[in-house]
Amino acid sequence: MKTLINPNSQEIETALVRPVNFDESLSKRVRDILNEVKLLGDTALMGFNSKFDEYQGSIKIEKAELEKAAEIVSEELKSAVNLAINNIETFHRSQRPQDIYKETMDGVRCELLYKPLSRVGLYIPGGTAPLLSTVLMLAVPAKVAGCKELVICTPPNPSVELLYVLSLFDAKVFLVGGAQAIAAMAFGTETVPQVDKIFGPGNSYVTEAKMQVTRLCVPIDMPAGPSEVLIIADESAIPSFVAADLLSQAEHGEDSQVLLISTSKRVLKESLNEADSQLQTLPRKDIAQKCLENSVAILVDSVSQAVEISNNYAPEHLILAIGNANEIVNTITNAGSVFVGNYSPESVGDYTSGTNHTLPTNGFARNWSGVNLLSFYKTITFQQLSYNGLKGLANATITLARAEGLEAHARAVEVRIIGNNV
Amino acid sequence: MKTLINPNSQEIETALVRPVNFDESLSKRVRDILNEVKLLGDTALMGFNSKFDEYQGSIKIEKAELEKAAEIVSEELKSAVNLAINNIETFHRSQRPQDIYKETMDGVRCELLYKPLSRVGLYIPGGTAPLLSTVLMLAVPAKVAGCKELVICTPPNPSVELLYVLSLFDAKVFLVGGAQAIAAMAFGTETVPQVDKIFGPGNSYVTEAKMQVTRLCVPIDMPAGPSEVLIIADESAIPSFVAADLLSQAEHGEDSQVLLISTSKRVLKESLNEADSQLQTLPRKDIAQKCLENSVAILVDSVSQAVEISNNYAPEHLILAIGNANEIVNTITNAGSVFVGNYSPESVGDYTSGTNHTLPTNGFARNWSGVNLLSFYKTITFQQLSYNGLKGLANATITLARAEGLEAHARAVEVRIIGNNV
Repeated sequence: MKTLINPNSQEIETALVRPVNFDESLSKRVRDILNEVKLLGDTALMGFNSKFDEYQGSIKIEKAELEKAAEIVSEELKSAVNLAINNIETFHRSQRPQDIYKETMDGVRCELLYKPLSRVGLYIPGGTAPLLSTVLMLAVPAKVAGCKELVICTPPNPSVELLYVLSLFDAKVFLVGGAQAIAAMAFGTETVPQVDKIFGPGNSYVTEAKMQVTRLCVPIDMPAGPSEVLIIADESAIPSFVAADLLSQAEHGEDSQVLLISTSKRVLKESLNEADSQLQTLPRKDIAQKCLENSVAILVDSVSQAVEISNNYAPEHLILAIGNANEIVNTITNAGSVFVGNYSPESVGDYTSGTNHTLPTNGFARNWSGVNLLSFYKTITFQQLSYNGLKGLANATITLARAEGLEAHARAVEVRIIGNNV
Repeated sequence: MKTLINPNSQEIETALVRPVNFDESLSKRVRDILNEVKLLGDTALMGFNSKFDEYQGSIKIEKAELEKAAEIVSEELKSAVNLAINNIETFHRSQRPQDIYKETMDGVRCELLYKPLSRVGLYIPGGTAPLLSTVLMLAVPAKVAGCKELVICTPPNPSVELLYVLSLFDAKVFLVGGAQAIAAMAFGTETVPQVDKIFGPGNSYVTEAKMQVTRLCVPIDMPAGPSEVLIIADESAIPSFVAADLLSQAEHGEDSQVLLISTSKRVLKESLNEADSQLQTLPRKDIAQKCLENSVAILVDSVSQAVEISNNYAPEHLILAIGNANEIVNTITNAGSVFVGNYSPESVGDYTSGTNHTLPTNGFARNWSGVNLLSFYKTITFQQLSYNGLKGLANATITLARAEGLEAHARAVEVRIIGNNV
């Protein structure tokens, strides 16, 4: 890792710039895929499956086939999945929104009601690490919210573990991946139903496709970039824990962002040495090593300075390996998910604590929320006025309407009030 | 209005198709404006102000100048604005989110905390109707949420009424309109600060610019299209009220969408006749007339059929001019804002009831929420585990991490548990 000792703010800014890679040619390729799916539907999907995944089978995978997986996977996995589901369900259930009822004036009753989205689309990436946990993080809250229909797309040839997890939900599952899966859920095809909102991570094609369909007005959970962790460690931090957390982020991919900010020269040095030694026995050693080479460790004077750097960076994951963590949690303004104290490794947030692991990356924690229960709802407002309620608002409404030059708006009130003594 | 008597579902679908106008050349012009503002900052803004608005003055408008407006506007307007602010504030205050604290298992404490967005950008359109109410609908909730900084852009040469309303908020106000205003808030210039989220309606340039900056990852409130109302009227509806509501939507613009669905032939006929007669004395008669010519009235058999049509159409505004409205409100699944009963004209939602008038159009009520208090927050999750809490999750976390091939994730748990009896 690059190490900066008490850098000035300009040096920090330079060190923390995220790689920007807006790729015009990728954008064009994705646009072409979207257009092809829009135009040709299933035929396009089958073409892409054959071309990219050497898969010629059916796009839809039947429930019975999913259920066969339960006979194959280990009891250990089943009980791990079960624990994770319980905790995710418990935490997301506790987020159930309250409908709002408020009389703003006598006879003027206003309501804000939460309605679950009817049909949601969940994208589960394939690739080197089969993200079965992503199914849990998206399908469990969708069910808790009461979404009527779950549409799940994942690339062909899924692992048996993924099939098992998919079998646990009442969902329509389709074997199609990449930008073409996003297109299918955004536009609908003969087989894949059009959804109300699209959730889930993915590679640069998937992300680009999500951004393009948002442009065409299907909402998405959030834009996604490479995964990130920022660790703040003081003198009380345990270097072997810090090192393990750095590596668990670094193994995600060479483009993962890993940052360590410490107030202790000793902890910083020992953590980096520990990381180097723990790295040697990791199966994904090469990936983690390349990632660490691009990562940055910073020695600072105070925890508050570390928090300031973190708030500016807005990390996806923030680990507070500091003694008085609880005293500073309320100063954290920009982060996706925060791990407080020595016994809260990022891994628990990825799988089992109950919080959602679908989080804003790339600095978007400044202005986007991670997926939570409310991500699966929309709101509708209602208002009901009595005759007297309307009378109480009449003058103000008429005055404002006329100030905006909207006479018919004024008259819609007048016609109900003037000469009317109901 | 085109009238359909007991049409079949195909006829309904055809009649309710919204005009689609994705304009490639508009998209290109907006892209050029965005790029120019990104590259040249204030110089670009001043150039556009001069070119489009014949305005060569300062981009920033000082508080003192805004405050002069208070000496000019009428007391009647002041008290109307005051009443509107009170009701909007009351209703949005009642939406204050509760932070969530939940122990999902012994020693596993999870939190979801709401943090107000720091700096929000509000766009207030100019044009024929000066939308001073839009300032109230966006600035009041931003203040209630606790956003630190409000940045407001509106085209040059604002009305004194608009200046007055702007003077009531602690905000930075800039005289710049159109796509260039959206670009300024998304990228920042020497004068206009970059914001965390952009809110507010506008013409097709503004909407296109908002969609393009969302693509570049500044979130927006929602995509906007022409305003809409759908009225469901049964035998108990009062034709003069229905007619006034049709016209108050129709006067917005020739492209407004106005729909009447009735179970009563008499009410339908009388409402249309009334609309024709009320139309004659409206200042915006020509606009309203053209709009009505493109509008549709439908006679149906039952209120439930009307609700089904409405849910499929997903109107921005839905008026329930029916006797038993309260019995069917819970069957409304897709709408921006609903006006229940004979004394709830859309005008009160536009100005004074307290609900927000920034609502999804163009069918987006299927999957987007109108602006509400939560639109001005993001969420952060926290988790804090005790040693025993981590022990309770350890096996499941390690099993799931290994099932995903992420060994370092498993070890970040193991290093804290194995041989550790803290």
